[in-house]
Amino acid sequence: MAGKSPEEQHPVKAYGWAARDSSGILSPFKFSRRVTGDYDVRVKILYCGICHSDLQIAKNEMGFSTYPLVPGFETVGIATEVGSKVTKVKVGDKVAVGAIVGSCGKCDECVNDRDCYCPRLITAYGGIDHDGTPTYGGFSNETVANENYVFRFPENLPLAAGAPLLNAGLTVYSPMRFYGLDKPGMHLGVVGLGGLGHLAVKFAKAFGTKVTVISTSPSKKDEAINDLGADAFLVSSDTEQMKGAARTLDGIIDTVPDIHPIEPLLRLLKNHSKLVLVGATGGSFELPILPLALGRKTVASSIGGSAKETQEMLDFAAEHSITANIEIIPMDYVNTATERVEKSDIRYRFVIDIGNTLTP
Amino acid sequence: MAGKSPEEQHPVKAYGWAARDSSGILSPFKFSRRVTGDYDVRVKILYCGICHSDLQIAKNEMGFSTYPLVPGFETVGIATEVGSKVTKVKVGDKVAVGAIVGSCGKCDECVNDRDCYCPRLITAYGGIDHDGTPTYGGFSNETVANENYVFRFPENLPLAAGAPLLNAGLTVYSPMRFYGLDKPGMHLGVVGLGGLGHLAVKFAKAFGTKVTVISTSPSKKDEAINDLGADAFLVSSDTEQMKGAARTLDGIIDTVPDIHPIEPLLRLLKNHSKLVLVGATGGSFELPILPLALGRKTVASSIGGSAKETQEMLDFAAEHSITANIEIIPMDYVNTATERVEKSDIRYRFVIDIGNTLTP
Repeated sequence: MAGKSPEEQHPVKAYGWAARDSSGILSPFKFSRRVTGDYDVRVKILYCGICHSDLQIAKNEMGFSTYPLVPGFETVGIATEVGSKVTKVKVGDKVAVGAIVGSCGKCDECVNDRDCYCPRLITAYGGIDHDGTPTYGGFSNETVANENYVFRFPENLPLAAGAPLLNAGLTVYSPMRFYGLDKPGMHLGVVGLGGLGHLAVKFAKAFGTKVTVISTSPSKKDEAINDLGADAFLVSSDTEQMKGAARTLDGIIDTVPDIHPIEPLLRLLKNHSKLVLVGATGGSFELPILPLALGRKTVASSIGGSAKETQEMLDFAAEHSITANIEIIPMDYVNTATERVEKSDIRYRFVIDIGNTLTP
Repeated sequence: MAGKSPEEQHPVKAYGWAARDSSGILSPFKFSRRVTGDYDVRVKILYCGICHSDLQIAKNEMGFSTYPLVPGFETVGIATEVGSKVTKVKVGDKVAVGAIVGSCGKCDECVNDRDCYCPRLITAYGGIDHDGTPTYGGFSNETVANENYVFRFPENLPLAAGAPLLNAGLTVYSPMRFYGLDKPGMHLGVVGLGGLGHLAVKFAKAFGTKVTVISTSPSKKDEAINDLGADAFLVSSDTEQMKGAARTLDGIIDTVPDIHPIEPLLRLLKNHSKLVLVGATGGSFELPILPLALGRKTVASSIGGSAKETQEMLDFAAEHSITANIEIIPMDYVNTATERVEKSDIRYRFVIDIGNTLTP
């Protein structure tokens, strides 16, 4: 099958929007999806979020992209068919698919519910599926995935505003849990107020922590505090303000997608606490040893989260009514939207209305 | 008292060797020590180790040194007088004094046995004592310190070879414990085989871990394995060897005193594990985000250890017969010794025979 054209690889016709080269420009694309296997769930896609990583991968900025490339790993919709062995969801259920659609199931990472670190991980798009064919993401009419990677989407969460939880939400939720930045009464810093950052603020508040947003944009203070519920706001370029907040934070989650100075952030941390970098996807930070050593501080990172954490995160979001602040757009607005994402001209996440605007 | 000359500040005459300026060259120096207070222990110094930091501080490389400066924070000897309220040791006991001689006793760090992070910490030399006078280190005939910072030196440990435990030993023991690099069956990496590194190997073996030494010097392989008991040895410049060991280590303690590439070390770590940097005392490392994120790895650091950990470390060392490999030198060899330390021409620690070779 791997040698066939995208339209002929599988029996079921499918359509979406794909990048054809490193320009990253998306345009309509015809391909195919497999039939529903015994353990598969078939999903009619209704909404899909746009992540900053989608742009980077569409433009091959990380160097591993293959074309045609159908992005999208914040995918939500309705189960339209389930395999004979599927027990997790039934036809008609609201479901979601994230950044991962497969793993080996046998390695140490997989058996310990850390499948997002499986070396044989299959990404939702641009990956190679178990049958050797390329995977295509959520900017498409439907998808099929093993039930392990299809999540129950909570009834009380709106599908569109919930879509960004699948990646942006998980990317902040998982490390906040793993690195212990989830204890009530803690004082957390959230650096950067974009797709990831605004959800980090919401999760942090739901964990019962006090939250200080650290941003380069003074203009975001009002929304940070009044719309998102942050307790305080620091302008990172204001050295007096930053100095005044030295050693006040029990942990920081840094969602900025580019390399930036972390010494000022280390200085905001109390001793024995952690700076967790989840925004940057390449390059090297400058790590000064003295603030790290003198306060026994830690710098850490992570990617996404496991299947188990994904379901847990969705259920937690439902319990605390956490959704993303989104702008819903039609499919043919996607190239304009990606340009706006690059300029950070979105508060805070674009979600494509696939169900109503994607046509064959 | 603070305004008086070093000889007149206190009632008891003392002598040692001091640096007078940033040349770092040491020469005989007369000063004074306080009388033994109610909670003080007076120590006749018999041996004192030479640490790489002693050189750096003598030369004001960190920018905070004051002169005259009597180095030495790996101090061991015999208690010659104890204050009326002292319960910890008695006259004639073998005792040790490390890098810290005082703290506030009240802050969050102090009350939680993390006094080495107390913001009002008093260092063994170059610090300002509670009475406002400068502190002088162990390159001297005797010292006086609060019993909280005078440790029982285990009977079965030799004083000279045990002296380097006070700083070199503690600097590796404390983070290995705190960061969980002390679990039997773990496979640890120790980077750099100097004063700190060779003790890290010994502690790691005593914890029951498998140890791989990573060094720039192929010539150290034999001693690492045959003398120190390491299980394996990697030459860090040998990219094939390093590649072959990728993702095999459960943790790394890096004792190299200079800035160096850490990406190759991050690649040796298994997922979800830690690189702990304890050798460097200034500058910035280059921290690549991808190996950190893709393996959910952590970079951490620390300084020294608490009073509680110091006693615990000494007792653990005694139980497992851990001492440093040393070269004992007379006091007047100290300037030659420091030159040799700078050239790493010592395996692995100089210890000054204060008792027999320091004269007034």
